[in-house]
Formats: sequence, structure tokens, C-alpha cells
Amino acid sequence: MLWSGWGDPARATPLPAAAVELLRDLLGVRPPKVPPVALESIEVPPSRLPGAAADALAGVVGAGGLRTDAETRIRHTRGKSTPDLLRVRAGDVSDAPDAVVLPGTHEEVLGVLGVCAEHLVTVIPFGGGTSVVGGLAPPRAGSGSSRAGDRPRIALDLRRLDRLLAVDPLSRTATLQPGLRAPRAEELLREHGLTLGHYPQSYEWATVGGFAAARSSGQASTGYGRFDDMVVALTVATPEGTLELGRAPKSAAGPDLRQLVLGSEGAFGVITSVTVRVRPAPETAVYDGWRFPAFAEGTAALRTLAQDGPLPTVLRLADETETMVGLARAHESGGPAAGPEAGGCLAIVGFEGVAGDVASRRAAAGAVLRTFGGEPLGGGPGESWARGRFAAPYLRDALLDVGAFAETLETAAFWSGIPALYAAVREALTGSLAPAAGAGPHGTGHGAGRPLVMCHISHVYPAGASLYFTVLSAGGDDAVARWARAKGAVNDAIIAAGGTISHHHGVGTDHRDWYAREIGPLGVEVLRAVKDRLDPAGILNPGVLVPDHPPAPGR
Amino acid sequence: MLWSGWGDPARATPLPAAAVELLRDLLGVRPPKVPPVALESIEVPPSRLPGAAADALAGVVGAGGLRTDAETRIRHTRGKSTPDLLRVRAGDVSDAPDAVVLPGTHEEVLGVLGVCAEHLVTVIPFGGGTSVVGGLAPPRAGSGSSRAGDRPRIALDLRRLDRLLAVDPLSRTATLQPGLRAPRAEELLREHGLTLGHYPQSYEWATVGGFAAARSSGQASTGYGRFDDMVVALTVATPEGTLELGRAPKSAAGPDLRQLVLGSEGAFGVITSVTVRVRPAPETAVYDGWRFPAFAEGTAALRTLAQDGPLPTVLRLADETETMVGLARAHESGGPAAGPEAGGCLAIVGFEGVAGDVASRRAAAGAVLRTFGGEPLGGGPGESWARGRFAAPYLRDALLDVGAFAETLETAAFWSGIPALYAAVREALTGSLAPAAGAGPHGTGHGAGRPLVMCHISHVYPAGASLYFTVLSAGGDDAVARWARAKGAVNDAIIAAGGTISHHHGVGTDHRDWYAREIGPLGVEVLRAVKDRLDPAGILNPGVLVPDHPPAPGR
Repeated sequence: MLWSGWGDPARATPLPAAAVELLRDLLGVRPPKVPPVALESIEVPPSRLPGAAADALAGVVGAGGLRTDAETRIRHTRGKSTPDLLRVRAGDVSDAPDAVVLPGTHEEVLGVLGVCAEHLVTVIPFGGGTSVVGGLAPPRAGSGSSRAGDRPRIALDLRRLDRLLAVDPLSRTATLQPGLRAPRAEELLREHGLTLGHYPQSYEWATVGGFAAARSSGQASTGYGRFDDMVVALTVATPEGTLELGRAPKSAAGPDLRQLVLGSEGAFGVITSVTVRVRPAPETAVYDGWRFPAFAEGTAALRTLAQDGPLPTVLRLADETETMVGLARAHESGGPAAGPEAGGCLAIVGFEGVAGDVASRRAAAGAVLRTFGGEPLGGGPGESWARGRFAAPYLRDALLDVGAFAETLETAAFWSGIPALYAAVREALTGSLAPAAGAGPHGTGHGAGRPLVMCHISHVYPAGASLYFTVLSAGGDDAVARWARAKGAVNDAIIAAGGTISHHHGVGTDHRDWYAREIGPLGVEVLRAVKDRLDPAGILNPGVLVPDHPPAPGR
Repeated sequence: MLWSGWGDPARATPLPAAAVELLRDLLGVRPPKVPPVALESIEVPPSRLPGAAADALAGVVGAGGLRTDAETRIRHTRGKSTPDLLRVRAGDVSDAPDAVVLPGTHEEVLGVLGVCAEHLVTVIPFGGGTSVVGGLAPPRAGSGSSRAGDRPRIALDLRRLDRLLAVDPLSRTATLQPGLRAPRAEELLREHGLTLGHYPQSYEWATVGGFAAARSSGQASTGYGRFDDMVVALTVATPEGTLELGRAPKSAAGPDLRQLVLGSEGAFGVITSVTVRVRPAPETAVYDGWRFPAFAEGTAALRTLAQDGPLPTVLRLADETETMVGLARAHESGGPAAGPEAGGCLAIVGFEGVAGDVASRRAAAGAVLRTFGGEPLGGGPGESWARGRFAAPYLRDALLDVGAFAETLETAAFWSGIPALYAAVREALTGSLAPAAGAGPHGTGHGAGRPLVMCHISHVYPAGASLYFTVLSAGGDDAVARWARAKGAVNDAIIAAGGTISHHHGVGTDHRDWYAREIGPLGVEVLRAVKDRLDPAGILNPGVLVPDHPPAPGR
């Protein structure tokens, strides 16, 4: 993983000159004034891990399992949100962990938690390091949130827990360790003729444990289900002991405690194994493009498939702006898609499975899509989407290199609330990122042009859908501060419009205060009660998910 | 509802003489020595509700909303398990609530909880009163469990909260109040062309709030989903305030707190509204019978449909014993089914929906069933099942009348664990209810013959299924004590075989100690932490779901 960006550095691709020109002309993007720093030149703060804690940790995981070298600490600093990248490119590693610990077994995880509880060392569970919501950066002291901010901190890197533990072919389940990266998990399952079918955009680097801890949604979730839907059992190491959950797919025996661990983002414990539903690897896969006259018609078509079927495996719909940008890019690179002049909204409708079944579902879905004005575009747009499905984070690096700012955010709601939510988020983004916004006495709007706001629906349910926004603008002088204001405005808009604060990415620290509004003060109290019982010393990801101390009176 | 049994007293049907003879010859059933008491002759303990609490409650719900008459208190005593019925038939109403309170709004529920927290009055949320797991009978003092056992107690009857609050046709959701009985909810939804599709055996009396609080499974759950799968939003009144949960069908924002309320059985709060997924009322419904050579083949056929589809709406498979008994009954009443000599295992495979879709799914499912040796029996057995689908509780009353004992229990597991779980439960039941069992110095086996143990699969998932057992035996001298021992043996067997302690009925008090083993001591601590935060005075259904005080050291 590129320490200052995404993925395999060998796959980095600079933007073509024409694209850079277009960004300059349309969005006012200017080259950054300062180039990114070199890894070697970064000064990491001295490790504050006390010797006694270090010795005890080395006693649990072995000397090789405890790392304090600068490069390892830099590579475990924060996650992969755009602000995270901007800060690390500027050499800011003030949030670096004091050490990185690599346990190899559930028992070693328990041992590490025991040592850290005793020595009051903050523990940041670390899978693929792909959080884009501040899930790997508990607040430091002085940020107004944390009794734990002054404590030394370790990243608990789970990469050594990387085995496929069991396959149950009759029940079609597999038990995976949390540090397995998704492609490796898929490779191990394919040896049994099985697939997990979970392909988030972070697929190449994200881990099974992270999928569970953050309730990941994959690009094929319409067909295979969200990750939280796939999980049938969990093992969790907590400072107070082990939780073993899940004796049957479903039960009437009490609350579903699996659903309390899923989405807990390392604040309640460390997931050390996950048993998931798996399926036979598909015989065939086909992804078709469809054009709809407008987003509303396309949305109605998706809703109809979600409610009445047949359900595709992949079902996505870009709004007019995202369609225009996508078609322009495809056109430019000589792809088969129609040019931007064709207009409308592009949907990708994919089917995976047994050949005969794919054919009949594809035909039946096509008939539904036509009734909403859908026009088939053939396999070209689908193949183009499939080729580039994990490429966006690489493109973001290239955009940052030329001085642009690119970030994503997402929400979900019931179908009846989707149009208002869509409008509210667009308005919040365009309003807060407009050249005038923040250009007052305290503003940093200088150098930033109008933003380009794109949206797609990528996850549908019978009762609702997700909205995934991508925003592209000039970086300007202080893109981190400017984005923090815009993000706050969008979060306010999402909560006001009745949406959930995140459908894909989780809560972390970035969404925490809005999440508290979503579930209300009593909901926060419930989560805090659970955390207090499982993690009484407050060592686990403090300040992530819920504030780690009670709000002040009157707040 | 019959106070001492099930349902509409006008629909009670005595057993035919031939059946009584068969029960005597096969199971040693003898007429009970004592007939049930009359309602009028029951002495209810004097109400212990303090005057100040009664005044305060009447202030919240009005004088008409507070009832302390004997009949109302008797009708809110315990639930509808067979031991519950045996005790009330014997005139034992020692668990009667001291008063019954009928709030009409969410705010009144909050008000009642406030009064009860102040006066330390136990609150037993009461919907249809159909619990079969002791969910309506918190332990009394002296039963070894409860700081709350000495407190006065009220039943919080939700029948006045019986409205359909909203329908969202675009999202296909409906918001229902908890006191709505299922047939009335269905009636209100049908006015909008919609259905809930939730048909547990308790359908005629159970309520929407109870479905949510106890994670109900309906007979058509294979097609429509379990009730907990249908719920997209909840409002909950707790002693510490209101929880409003659910802004989208699914979210990545933290743990799914809806899943903490679902299954909480009134121990965390009172559900005051439920928003559920609804569907268009089906155009057509067809239920076919299929015979399989044996339970193993039938189970494999069901598993294949659950994993690879097409998924029927109703999918049930009786084992050899249940098939034999069912066919004998059908034969006797001149039904079209083959006689018991035909053997094998009967499956009911039903489809509901749009006519064309039903036809194609039915044909495709039939092709799958044939590959497992399934033999189509036509519509007769399916129609017979559909006619009698809510009749079993009436039959139980008739069996109790002639001195037989009939009870049900259920569990679920992953497919690979189903055969061992099936064998373990059968063995525990036949062993613990055999004539010799309990006939020693402390036993009460006298007068009881061998039990008849039947089982069916009625809920399938890709990863596993439920097993639903019915046991029939002679009542004997002390059926309540005898069943308590047998039930303990079965619960031990379920936990040892890796099953969940309940797939249909919930935890209540009857399963509580085994539920604690299922989720482990740390799981219990998590639930207790949540309860302590939402219900610090411990007024809500104390001793139901989790013990209401910490276990003694070393336990």
C-alpha cells in the first residue's frame, strides 16, 4: 500500500494533460503550491510507549510482533480519507501510533488487551487501514473529547490472523480470520469452489475483520447481500474476555448480539473470527449498461426490481452529472460508450450465477427496465465499469497530484425520502463549496472554484436505497479546513432530511457527533453502557463511534 | 380468549371417542382426576398495589385504564404454555398481576413507566398474552431470582394502542401500533392492497408488539421473512426516555440497535410503534403436498431450495412420526390424503404472489423436489394444512381435557448440525418422559406412558433451519413437575448439540438459564448493562430474558 495514497504504487497513473486542462477550465484547479513530502524526510514523534508496557507486549506477541520503527508507525497513521491523505502528504503524522503490535492468535489479542488495560494504552484495531471516516485516529488530547487523549497508543495490526479456519460446505459457511485481505479470502474460498461475493471499492486492501467491524457494503451487495447480512457467527476478544456469538442463522433467543458487534468499529472489542455465508463461485457474469431519460425514472426502475424482482447481482444508477463525466471519460479513452451528448442516466445491471438462471433473470429484468424508459446499451458500459471498479482511489491520488480535491460520502433512506435527501445533500455540497463560501474574514475559500457533485445509487432494498456522492473541486489553499466545513454542512443536511449518516463507510470520528443525533441521547447511552462493560478502562478506539466520556450537562 | 385455554371458546372441539381410545391404548392417557375449576370459583390474592401508585397510574391513564377486578387480573396471569394452562385450570393464579393498566398513547406508556419506577412497581408488558415461555410471569420472591419478587406488579396491556399509523406505499412500509392483533393489522393493510404476510400459529391472538419483542417467525417466513427481518424502524418507551430507531433499511452507522430491541421481551422498554416492510396482497396462493422417502432426503430437498432457489412462500417438512400422525388424522376424517401405510415424510410447499410468477416458481421448485425423491401429492394435503394451520392450540385444550399432555418446543442450527440436533432432542424427550424416568423416590412418573415425539422443519435459511417438536404423552399425576424435568433435559441437549435455545418462542423465564449458556457470561453482562442503563430501577419484566441481579461470585 502506498503510504501517502492508495494501493500498489506501480499502478499509479497520472492524469492525461487534457484532463488537467479541463479541471483548470471547469473547476479552477491549479497545481499545488507544495509537493508531497518524501517518506524519509518525515519526522515521527518519539514513541511514548512506556518500557514496562513494551516489555509486556513483547512478552505476549514476541519481539518480532512489536514494531516501533518510523516507517511502520507512519504506515499505521490514520486511514485513507482525502483529508487523511492531504495531511500525510504534508508530513503531518502527529497521530502516529507509538507502536504497532502484531498478534497471531485470539489468545494473543486477549493478552495484548490485558496488557493495554493494565498500562492504560490506547488500542487502535487495524485491518487494511482503509477507513475513510477517521476510524483509525482517536482524538488526541486537547481536541476536546478524550480522557484517553494523553495515553500512549498502539495500532493492533491483525495481518497475521490471515487464515481460512473452516469451510462447512453443507451449510455454505466459512470461518475466516479478520486479517485476511479480501482478494486472499476470495482466493482461498475459490479453492473450494466458493465465493464470498463481497467487492467494496476498497476490495484490494480491506480485510474481513474490517468488513464486519464497519458493516461494509460491496458492489454486488444487491445479489450477495451486505457483509453484515452474510455474517452468521463471530468471535470477539474484549478486555473483559471473549464473546462467542451465533449458533444458528436466525434465532428468537433474545436480542441479536451479532448485530451489536457488527458496526462496533473496534470500540467494543477485536473481532478474531467471522463465520460468513458463502456461495458457489459463479459460472458466469454479465454486466449490461442501460440508459434512462432521467434519474427519477431510473430510480423508479431500480425500486421496482428491488421490490418485485428479479434482483440483479449488481445494480447501480448514476445521476446525470456522474453519467456525463463517466461517458466523457469513456469517450476520451476510445471506449464504446456513447458520448456525453447522449445525456440521461447510466445504469449498470449485472447478473452472476449459473448460466441458464442468469439468462432468464437478465431477460426478465430487461423487460422491467424498458417499462421505465430504459434503453439497453449492451455490454460495453458494463465491461468498462467492471474494468475500473476498484480504480477510483488511484484516480484520486492523480487528482490530488494536480491540485484537485476529490472525496466521497454516502447515506441511505427509505424510497419515499430519496428525492429530498438527494436534493439536500447536493445543495449542502454546492453551497458550502461555492467560491464565495468561507471567503469571509475567517474563510479559506481563496483559490477554490465551483465543485462538481456526482451521485449514484449502488445498493437497493425493498424499502429504500443508498446515495453515494463524489465531489470534485479545486483544492484551494486549505482543502482540509474547507472540506471539514463542507462535510459538517452535508452531515447536518443528511440528518435533517432523515437519512442515515452512513450507509457504506461507518461512523469513525468524522460522523460521530451526527451519529449521536441519529440514534439520540438514549441510544448513545446504550452504546456507552455496552462499551463501559466490555472495555471499562476505555482503551479501545476511544472517541470512535461514541464519545468516550459522558457529554457535559446541557449539551 | 378462553381464560383457561386457547382462543374463542365457541370453537372448542372435543376429541372424537376413537382418538381418546387411541390415546389410552398407545400412550396410557387416563382421564384427569380433577376437572378444571370454574372462573368464578378462583380466589385471587388481594391486590397489593399501593394506593399512591394506583392514584398516580389512574392520573396517567384515567380511572377506566386501571383495572383491579378479579377476572381481568386472572386473564392477565401468565401466558399460554401447557404448564401455564395446567396451573390456571387448577385455580393457581398466584402470579396474577395486582392491577392491569391500559395506556392509550406512547406518552401514557412513558407516564406509566415513570410512576412505576418511582413506586418500584414491576411492569409486565402484555400484548396478546400468548407467551409460551414464561415471558409474562416474572419470578415471585422466594423463587431464588429476584430483588423485584416482593414488589407489586402490573400488567401493561397494550390493546388500546391498536392503530395503523401510516402507510408509505412507495417504500412499501407501514407503521403499526403494538397492541394491534395480527388479523386486524392484516385487515387494515388489505384496505391498502397490502399484506404483512406474518402467520405464526398464534396469529389469531398475538399482537404486532409481541411479534417484535419476541422475534416471531410466521408459517410463511420463508417467503415473507421473519418478523425481525420485516422491521425497519421502532419507537420504544423506556423508564429513561424514548428510543427512535431506523432511518433506512440498512446502515453502516454503528451497531444495529433495532436488533437489540427486537427480542428484548419487554425487559428493556415497551415498543410503542413498529414500522415494517409490507407487500402487495397476493393474487393467488397454492399449497402442495409432497412425500419424501425419509426425513433426510426431504431435509436435503429443503436445503437445496433454501440455498439455490426458487424459494417457496411456505416450506415445511414433517418427520416420519408427525407425518404418520397427520395422515392418520386426515384419513380418519375422510380427507383426501393417503393413509398412514403410505409412510415417508410429508412436505407442504406453498407459493403466494402474482399468478404467473407462482406458476413458474412452483414448476421450478417441483423439479428440484423430484431430484430428491419427492413425489407430488397434489393440493389435498396443502389445503388440509391451510385449513388447520391455526388449530393446534384448540386441539391442545381438547387433549388436556381428556388427561393427555401436549407441548411444543423448537430450536435452530446450521444445516450440518441439524441431524445431530434432531437426534439429541428426540433422545432427551423420550428418555426424560419414559415411564421409568422420574419413577424413583423423588419421581412423579406414576401414571404416565411413553411419549410420542413429532418434529417438523418450518423455517429454512441458506445456512440452516429450525426444528419444531411436538410431544404428546399421558399427563400423569404431576404433569407440571414432570414436564419441568423433561424441558430441562431437552434444553441441556439443545445447548450441548450447538443449537439455539429458541427459534420461535423466545427466552422468557423458561429458557433464561440456557440462554445465558448460549451467549456466555460476558453476553449476559452486555444485556444486563443495557438493561441497567434503560431500566435502572429494574421494573421491566424482571427475571425475564436475563436474571435481574448479578450472578453470585463463582457462578
